[in-house]
Amino acid sequence: MELAELTPDSEAYLGQLGYLTLVMFENLGRAAAVSPTMSGKSRVGRVAAGTLDVHERVLAELRALKLDPAAAMEPYRSGLDDFQRRTQGDDWYETLISCYLTSGFLLDFFVRLAPGLPDKLAKRMAEILRPEGEDHPLVDELRESIDRTPQIASRLAMWGRRLIGDTMLIARSTLNLESQSDGKERVEPVFTELIAAHTRRMDGLGLTA
Amino acid sequence: MELAELTPDSEAYLGQLGYLTLVMFENLGRAAAVSPTMSGKSRVGRVAAGTLDVHERVLAELRALKLDPAAAMEPYRSGLDDFQRRTQGDDWYETLISCYLTSGFLLDFFVRLAPGLPDKLAKRMAEILRPEGEDHPLVDELRESIDRTPQIASRLAMWGRRLIGDTMLIARSTLNLESQSDGKERVEPVFTELIAAHTRRMDGLGLTA
Repeated sequence: MELAELTPDSEAYLGQLGYLTLVMFENLGRAAAVSPTMSGKSRVGRVAAGTLDVHERVLAELRALKLDPAAAMEPYRSGLDDFQRRTQGDDWYETLISCYLTSGFLLDFFVRLAPGLPDKLAKRMAEILRPEGEDHPLVDELRESIDRTPQIASRLAMWGRRLIGDTMLIARSTLNLESQSDGKERVEPVFTELIAAHTRRMDGLGLTA
Repeated sequence: MELAELTPDSEAYLGQLGYLTLVMFENLGRAAAVSPTMSGKSRVGRVAAGTLDVHERVLAELRALKLDPAAAMEPYRSGLDDFQRRTQGDDWYETLISCYLTSGFLLDFFVRLAPGLPDKLAKRMAEILRPEGEDHPLVDELRESIDRTPQIASRLAMWGRRLIGDTMLIARSTLNLESQSDGKERVEPVFTELIAAHTRRMDGLGLTA
């Protein structure tokens, strides 16, 4: 059972990803504004530039399909705005780790859905969503933050566990499921690898997932 | 008397512009988060992508000079953070018009300072800071916002006049002046064209400067 068997149609895929990247950009802007360090601001800026590049290219794909980007994104607005409120965090540390963990999970998720799109679009999406490298700029910033204030590690570990629940729910709402009950059985196994990757991200920061 | 006769050294020019573009990115992120329209979010995202592109290229110029970007930006942090607090605005309309007017003025200002840099850097900066076109994405959004709620026009006109004072002060602090009193006389005429451009931006929105 591959995640790509549950890929929604191109408009839904691109509309959700288009709005998600806007939400990610807003979260990164908020993180930059509260960053206690210059390196934090700059690294967050670098990630935001990459996120906005994905956003622009997703919008270009919608236009190439003769679809209006704003109209394609609109149906996913309230769900993603709600997700944003639940996951944005209360301070620099929580906001920063949310940016890293939720976008890590969700971009990975959209990468794995891409093979279910029409062939040429699938190929372009794989190119647009290059999987994150080992040297993600936010990892260094998070490690430095945790080193400076080790007492925050347990709070961030708890926050990271809470985030994964909300993130899986929003990912699940993207899938093309025949029925809710049917979906529940079919979906859980396909999240296994995504959850394992989340656990590796937490481990990499020295946090218990 | 040309503005370029008052251009600071390359490190100061690039450090200030590097931090300014980060502040602009944060303001755009905040604007996107409070945008009442999908078109607003998307247009703000497009401007932020361009701003972060300038930021990355400015940082690359600092690295090419064997300078540490964070260290080069640090001296301008508190002044620009204070400028940001004074100009960020209280709602979508004020934040949006601040993004448009303050960045319009300050990027124009850095364009006019560029010829005072060493030759090759001057040429590259002219390329990096392409002057804003007539079709700035925020202009359409602002016009639509003002059309929808015409009663905000007088508040925005007042806000726009207040912004120009803070913006000129921060621009002035960038200049390489021999003494404060000397500076005052020499500087005022060189701001004339920048102020005229500000007035044209206000006029273009139907606001009295």
